[in-house]
Amino acid sequence: MGNQPGSGETLYLGIDGGGTKCRAVLLNADNQVLGVGNGGPSNPYHGVARALESIVNASDNALRNAGLTAQDKSRVVAGLGLAGVNLPSLFQVVEQWEHPYKAQYLTTDLHIACIAAHEQDNGAVIVSGTGSCGFAYVDGKSLTLGAHGFPCGDVGSGAWMGLECVKAVLLDSDELGPATAMTELVAEQLQARGIMIVERLNGAKSSDYAKLAPLVFAAAEQGDTVALNIVHTGAEYLNQVARKLWALNPPRMAMLGGVSTRIVDWMDQDLAARMSEPLNQPEFGAAHFARSRFNAEQVAAAP
Amino acid sequence: MGNQPGSGETLYLGIDGGGTKCRAVLLNADNQVLGVGNGGPSNPYHGVARALESIVNASDNALRNAGLTAQDKSRVVAGLGLAGVNLPSLFQVVEQWEHPYKAQYLTTDLHIACIAAHEQDNGAVIVSGTGSCGFAYVDGKSLTLGAHGFPCGDVGSGAWMGLECVKAVLLDSDELGPATAMTELVAEQLQARGIMIVERLNGAKSSDYAKLAPLVFAAAEQGDTVALNIVHTGAEYLNQVARKLWALNPPRMAMLGGVSTRIVDWMDQDLAARMSEPLNQPEFGAAHFARSRFNAEQVAAAP
Repeated sequence: MGNQPGSGETLYLGIDGGGTKCRAVLLNADNQVLGVGNGGPSNPYHGVARALESIVNASDNALRNAGLTAQDKSRVVAGLGLAGVNLPSLFQVVEQWEHPYKAQYLTTDLHIACIAAHEQDNGAVIVSGTGSCGFAYVDGKSLTLGAHGFPCGDVGSGAWMGLECVKAVLLDSDELGPATAMTELVAEQLQARGIMIVERLNGAKSSDYAKLAPLVFAAAEQGDTVALNIVHTGAEYLNQVARKLWALNPPRMAMLGGVSTRIVDWMDQDLAARMSEPLNQPEFGAAHFARSRFNAEQVAAAP
Repeated sequence: MGNQPGSGETLYLGIDGGGTKCRAVLLNADNQVLGVGNGGPSNPYHGVARALESIVNASDNALRNAGLTAQDKSRVVAGLGLAGVNLPSLFQVVEQWEHPYKAQYLTTDLHIACIAAHEQDNGAVIVSGTGSCGFAYVDGKSLTLGAHGFPCGDVGSGAWMGLECVKAVLLDSDELGPATAMTELVAEQLQARGIMIVERLNGAKSSDYAKLAPLVFAAAEQGDTVALNIVHTGAEYLNQVARKLWALNPPRMAMLGGVSTRIVDWMDQDLAARMSEPLNQPEFGAAHFARSRFNAEQVAAAP
């Protein structure tokens, strides 16, 4: 990329690390983009070593893209927003990693997504993608709702909808639950019925269940009672999440994730109408987070 | 064990293979027990090689217990009742295994449990243990209900109750669901609250969730509405399973599995009252199955 940074200047690296990939952006002190880079899966819940490797790859790629070398890491202040580090033990492992940067600041993927969505510290986000959760940060106070993962939580997410769909279709196949249009839709998508669905889903991950979410929406739009019940239950959970987050008075709220654009239409009209568009990508939120934490420490350390 | 079998006599081996262990019993032509043996996990769904190794170990142990050697396998007619082989691909893999026996007959763990429970081919069983399912065999016709596994099915099982418990407790911790007495009971048992529960259950198997079932019953007995709803939902599903199985007119029906003795009290009174005690252990059903299949083939092959 264009702007060649001065050789001693502090640089800010933002990392957005999730279950399938890792994005990095490198900014200079003036907030100009020097380089971007990608890496592999980086949720430490699914393997700490692999996550750290992906993070290093993404940051090396961003440095290379900026025309810099690995040696320049020593003037990089890194902000890491990672899935999984809402679990205290994983936060601790990544926090204590012998990182190659000048400084490293760690938080959740949710937190940096929120900063990026609103281009300011204060705000709230609701994620409905493979998983689901809510997050608000207002004047130093934060609240996380959900983020409990599959299969224990994540109501209103793609994986949750897919699992509820499979449960309903299996009950239908045994004639122990109401008939549902999802039975034919699942048969088409998975080429399987009844017990063969279980076979097809042997070892399935949450992202595999999430692939069934579009057919739940399709069946609901056709008026299928069982699918409507799933979509309404998911949307009602997200309504409750939104109301709890608004109670903290964030200046803005945005919905993120692949399922959000569809499920928002099933949420309460007053809540849906108040959602703002996310302004920026999460990795920029991570760089912002790194900069503001680093500056605060510099101020605190000043004589 | 006592009776030394004649050196040419055909022997019957019954194997009951489940997710945590494998039991074998060796019978002579007069149905006398010559030996018994145990092996490790033997659900091919969790690994075919390991399952077959456990089966061989259990049968070797039973032969040794009978004062026989591995060479005697060539006169053993084996009946295998395995969890997981309700999935056609796994049935095929085990069916095509180069087994060391004179003959091998394969069926599900449910089928041999049913034969054993009633000491005859016809009958019905409802399992509520770590998982749940129903099975009936009447005059050559069989019906399997459920057996869909965790987390897609197994309503009314220990694992299902544990998962529903965790879901409810996590909603309670976010104040997005009703308060429940299970929150304190889970906190005691797992030494964890809120997101720490998710951490504690990182990588948990269905059997780990099933360990929470007793506290769901405990909370329900205290009148906790959320726990009552879980137990009632589970019991109602098993009611429906029982009614569908009775429609086939089996001579007897029995309930099996660690959770069955507790959940039966929450089922409809008329159904609970009609349940019979299981008469024998599943591995004896597997030996019976081996004998009757082998005899039927001998008759069919006769000139």
